[in-house]
Amino acid sequence: MTSHMASEIAEQPAAARRTLDALLPLRSEIRALMGSRRRVLLVARGSSDNAAIYGRYLLETAAGIPAGLAAPSVATHYGARLDLTDTLVVSVSQSGETTEIVQTQAWATSCGAATVAVTNGAGSALATEADLALVTQAGPELAVPATKTYLTQLVAMAVLADGLGGAVAPALDAVPDAVSSLLSLDVSSAARALADADDVVVSGRGLLMGTALETALKLEETCLKPVRGYSYADLRHGPISVVTTGVLAVLVAATDGPLAAAMVELAEDLQSRGARILGIGGTDEFRARCDEHLEAGSLPEIVAPLTAIVPAQLMIERLARDLGLDPDQPRGLAKVTTTDSQ
Amino acid sequence: MTSHMASEIAEQPAAARRTLDALLPLRSEIRALMGSRRRVLLVARGSSDNAAIYGRYLLETAAGIPAGLAAPSVATHYGARLDLTDTLVVSVSQSGETTEIVQTQAWATSCGAATVAVTNGAGSALATEADLALVTQAGPELAVPATKTYLTQLVAMAVLADGLGGAVAPALDAVPDAVSSLLSLDVSSAARALADADDVVVSGRGLLMGTALETALKLEETCLKPVRGYSYADLRHGPISVVTTGVLAVLVAATDGPLAAAMVELAEDLQSRGARILGIGGTDEFRARCDEHLEAGSLPEIVAPLTAIVPAQLMIERLARDLGLDPDQPRGLAKVTTTDSQ
Repeated sequence: MTSHMASEIAEQPAAARRTLDALLPLRSEIRALMGSRRRVLLVARGSSDNAAIYGRYLLETAAGIPAGLAAPSVATHYGARLDLTDTLVVSVSQSGETTEIVQTQAWATSCGAATVAVTNGAGSALATEADLALVTQAGPELAVPATKTYLTQLVAMAVLADGLGGAVAPALDAVPDAVSSLLSLDVSSAARALADADDVVVSGRGLLMGTALETALKLEETCLKPVRGYSYADLRHGPISVVTTGVLAVLVAATDGPLAAAMVELAEDLQSRGARILGIGGTDEFRARCDEHLEAGSLPEIVAPLTAIVPAQLMIERLARDLGLDPDQPRGLAKVTTTDSQ
Repeated sequence: MTSHMASEIAEQPAAARRTLDALLPLRSEIRALMGSRRRVLLVARGSSDNAAIYGRYLLETAAGIPAGLAAPSVATHYGARLDLTDTLVVSVSQSGETTEIVQTQAWATSCGAATVAVTNGAGSALATEADLALVTQAGPELAVPATKTYLTQLVAMAVLADGLGGAVAPALDAVPDAVSSLLSLDVSSAARALADADDVVVSGRGLLMGTALETALKLEETCLKPVRGYSYADLRHGPISVVTTGVLAVLVAATDGPLAAAMVELAEDLQSRGARILGIGGTDEFRARCDEHLEAGSLPEIVAPLTAIVPAQLMIERLARDLGLDPDQPRGLAKVTTTDSQ
């Protein structure tokens, strides 16, 4: 029997297309809401936070707008009063009902921010209370691990950045077909490498850092394996010292961009410490270094996260089944996450 | 023979006092440099990044100033042009010579930011090129794991927040004595619990999140054990599903503040999944839940990170020796970290 997770991975080309069609026309509203505001603050947790990390890099590198991630407890627990009159606050939550995110958005409004909600929940509190809702068109998602809701959040981030001046839209049109062409990838060897590893680390950098963190989170929550996700720089600043024989390093890379060469160096460094490399995407040189490799298409780095997550999703779904687990219902997780009982 | 790390942990009361004496008089210069700028952007990696996370929470909660962490690759690799004329950029590096941080500070200047360097290197590139240098007075640090340089960075963050309007200074005066009183803690039982654990996770929240991440980083780099550090929220959003019997959860908590109760709930949740709890600090109720507990003084939450790191340092130094490792020279780490060869 096909898992819901597998079906939902396969629905992504259509979900991405629907979301593009729904959101691209809202770019002028995004621009008008931004007005003379100077920066963007993203509010999210979990998978949505990993989508927001892509948004942050894209806004800064493609649109030239200072962007950052909010610390929700500053709003929800400390009740800090910040002047956010120069800020567009973008809250990301697939359900749109995560209390902490809804509360933080309300706090942002009270601090003078303009607010955008990115959510798959059209009638959710987050969508209805925002100045502008970017409603993703993933449709109902039945598996607990977010796949098509995550990918459509990435689409929303790309549309947001394009609306705010980044030239992202021209590259977006190719995304649905590129995702389609990856759906038949053979991930059995990659899943076996994961199952055989004593320890797994995941890393990526820049625009693809969020993809690496999302891969680590999904690996951990879906397969109940402790997995550490690091930015390239964080890995180099200490944790690399525990990389040794028996470690499988999953590295996510783009085929172009200013960080492509650094990912080859990282692969070499990790191999010299005894790790095996499972590469996703990257340049020909990167691919040649990898012990295992999964294709991720050839779209430019600014939209590469929208395809690079697909081989990771397929490999994780396969690994869960290989381990005798239900990909749709990992232990101890609910669909709407509650950070606090308060 | 006493390790350099042990000696340097013990020097911290004097180092903190010297740093307070040197930096408190600079608060008016900090204020003048801020002028009408509206936000603070922190630039750091590794342990310095964990100090910066404290700075971020303190600036937002105590001083009411929006603050965030920079993504250095946006400057060093993508060469993004951001308008930072409304921003005070605070770069943190113990050596002051980490190329990536020095380059990011130069980029910030070219983007219109005012710059503050927080470093232990008085004549370093970072200090000499900044508009204002907050030079920490840790003295030479011989052990590779940062201890007194980290604590004095926290002092600098507190002085910065006070200079920018947070009422932190009144609580700072008690720090050196509070650190002193923790130096004779018996950490043998805590070190044994760490040595016996199959898997270790570390968590903390808000003002103490940086302390948790620093504890995880030091545990991992000093003892060559894979250790995962999570914010409270990130842990609750997925990774908690892999917490089971054999996991030791190190939780860092304050004795007061709006998050103290949440840390008790987290301890209960983790215990119900089979984890043992090694608590550092916290309320009486928190302490009562812990399987192992280390005191962290009774200073208010706004300066609690300056004492809470001390039991963690002592326990890590002890664990390294118990494992037959040299606390001063963990494998594969250099004192000045190079993120890139470029």
